[in-house]
Amino acid sequence: MPGAALLLRNGRPLGGALADVLVSDGAIAAIGTNLAAPAGTAVEDAGGALVLPGLVEAHTHLDKSLWGMGWRANDAGPGLLDKIDNERKLKRELDIDPARQSARQAALSAAHGSTHIRSHVDVDTDHGLWGIEGVMATRDSWREVVDIELVAFPQSGLMRRPGTLALMDAALSAGAEIVGGIDPCGIDRDPKGQLDAVFALCQKHGKPLDIHLHEPGEMGAFSMELIIERTRALGMAGQVVVSHAFCLGSPDRDLVEPLITQLAALDIGIMTTGSASRPVPAIKRLLAAGIRVCSGSDGIRDTWGPYGTADMLERAMLIGLRNNFRRDEDVALAFHACTQGGADVMRIADYGLAVGKAGDMVVVAGEVITHAIVAHPPRRLVVKCGRVVARDGVCLKPAP
Amino acid sequence: MPGAALLLRNGRPLGGALADVLVSDGAIAAIGTNLAAPAGTAVEDAGGALVLPGLVEAHTHLDKSLWGMGWRANDAGPGLLDKIDNERKLKRELDIDPARQSARQAALSAAHGSTHIRSHVDVDTDHGLWGIEGVMATRDSWREVVDIELVAFPQSGLMRRPGTLALMDAALSAGAEIVGGIDPCGIDRDPKGQLDAVFALCQKHGKPLDIHLHEPGEMGAFSMELIIERTRALGMAGQVVVSHAFCLGSPDRDLVEPLITQLAALDIGIMTTGSASRPVPAIKRLLAAGIRVCSGSDGIRDTWGPYGTADMLERAMLIGLRNNFRRDEDVALAFHACTQGGADVMRIADYGLAVGKAGDMVVVAGEVITHAIVAHPPRRLVVKCGRVVARDGVCLKPAP
Repeated sequence: MPGAALLLRNGRPLGGALADVLVSDGAIAAIGTNLAAPAGTAVEDAGGALVLPGLVEAHTHLDKSLWGMGWRANDAGPGLLDKIDNERKLKRELDIDPARQSARQAALSAAHGSTHIRSHVDVDTDHGLWGIEGVMATRDSWREVVDIELVAFPQSGLMRRPGTLALMDAALSAGAEIVGGIDPCGIDRDPKGQLDAVFALCQKHGKPLDIHLHEPGEMGAFSMELIIERTRALGMAGQVVVSHAFCLGSPDRDLVEPLITQLAALDIGIMTTGSASRPVPAIKRLLAAGIRVCSGSDGIRDTWGPYGTADMLERAMLIGLRNNFRRDEDVALAFHACTQGGADVMRIADYGLAVGKAGDMVVVAGEVITHAIVAHPPRRLVVKCGRVVARDGVCLKPAP
Repeated sequence: MPGAALLLRNGRPLGGALADVLVSDGAIAAIGTNLAAPAGTAVEDAGGALVLPGLVEAHTHLDKSLWGMGWRANDAGPGLLDKIDNERKLKRELDIDPARQSARQAALSAAHGSTHIRSHVDVDTDHGLWGIEGVMATRDSWREVVDIELVAFPQSGLMRRPGTLALMDAALSAGAEIVGGIDPCGIDRDPKGQLDAVFALCQKHGKPLDIHLHEPGEMGAFSMELIIERTRALGMAGQVVVSHAFCLGSPDRDLVEPLITQLAALDIGIMTTGSASRPVPAIKRLLAAGIRVCSGSDGIRDTWGPYGTADMLERAMLIGLRNNFRRDEDVALAFHACTQGGADVMRIADYGLAVGKAGDMVVVAGEVITHAIVAHPPRRLVVKCGRVVARDGVCLKPAP
């Protein structure tokens, strides 16, 4: 996708002094004052607002949102398997079409300034590759608005539903970029089985792993140790992410600290949504240990629950509240998880508000970054590779 | 303040069928279809949006917001006393004028649909009644927009700062409606001393108590028992509220359940913000026990931290997230805490969206109440006693 040329005038990059940002061929060519617009360059005025890099939605489920389908009262049971089984059943009943719904959520994300999305996408024996094919269609047709990568995700379990592994293999052959997994003890009741299988998929396809681990406390620590052992044994340092990692939210430091040491040594990344109702990793501690930390919206208004706006500035607020961040330098860590931290996890080489990087930018009102996080007002402009893709909180490409 | 006459057409009261709401002399005179507007009645069209009762902000600190004063990076230390001492020092340094700042926050609250506010207001020996006088001025001059009641609040401690008790007494004589208190162990290190003193103020002035209790676990349970004992001994059932009550968020059911039983027996109310970083009471359990439960924004962008928008629909979302409410009937409990529950605690007799009650209403987009909570879009209209006080997210009375 060739990029565009844009001169964004009178913004305050990262809350600093007024400056112009010039994008040429989709990449940032200059940041400075009184820049001139070469012929053929579109011009926008930021009016003194903040200019931020594109936000990074590093964990969501594009295939399953109910956004735009009319309100549906949630009737899932209380357990994790209740929600999983309920959702699998409702997918056809409600026609939660992954192509349509992922495009709707992509538009919502773009409206809020996300320029990159990592989406876990369900792979199961009821629906096969319906989700993967749908999100891939959106990935391709929305490429000029937002970059999307897919995790082949065995939401309903891998070992407990024979046939799922072959579908995962097919999803990866079809182009899903990342291998997924979920609660090898809690869901599959066979941690060795699932982890051997997903790591084997990584080896076969030469692709990284991003595994959901909701398991708390000692059980989660056990599963995490099994993940760590395989990462080390297979030489996969830097290629593994653990999403949620509630076990790291345990108050037992003797449980948590040895895990953090090993995660750091093997460059295993952590994704946290800053869940208010579950134990969560303390991101300040993770970042101090040198661990890559990213965040995401998780499910947006789906059969799991009604919440979510796909706004990664609001997410930074929720992470800040959960981590009790009050000083600007602490809130900056929550912002990091929603921007550069996501790029670190997704290995986005051309990410950042700097010359030579992609021309992905968000213009938003605020005196400083913390201000934009706590108020998270509608985005004035969202720019993807030099193209304006959203204005005043509305995505310019219509969703289906 | 005499009320106004208004016909609000085409709204969906509480998410039900389309109906009109007629307000006469400030009170709801009729709810039905095709109502006629008597002469002199203003007419507004809700356009099919939800009509909710006025939201109730039952715990905030109007005197200390920095809203509108320009961004200030938070530099308070980590402890509770750090924040208290830092704030007391900064009040004059930054000129955090309670009259001006309370009016600004009142406008913000009204813009988001709150029609009633309970504000704790600092009373201390450095600033005397500066806060009380300032918020009283706002209470009086903003009466047509929002009802405000004041808690005389010994933020800096009562026993540890001699002279504070006399100021509390003066604040109550001057018209503060409620007696406040704070962490009798944690702040004052003299639980008997503080609690005897604040209950004596209640007795002397014939006023109820609303006491901050951040103390967690066993310490908080001890303080709560002392509060319960005095409530019983003095015949003050129904006249006491415990704000925060983090001790009720303990996972130790043997600690929590006996407290809940006694709170219910003495009709002691509980205020929770749904804090994401501290243990919080499970409001479903409290409500099932018959305990009055309300909520509030607590501090809005003050020297304690940068968060807060004064939006009680967003607050309902935060309470829902914290309590892991996913079904509409559970999210309704969070909504209750931000509406009727607040009225129950503040003893607002004419509260509610029903004939004979005050004409306080909020018009907001949404298919159902849960929808309005998770999306919390700008309020289309806010009506106080039949008068439109905010439109499209903006308070019509200008803040200073």
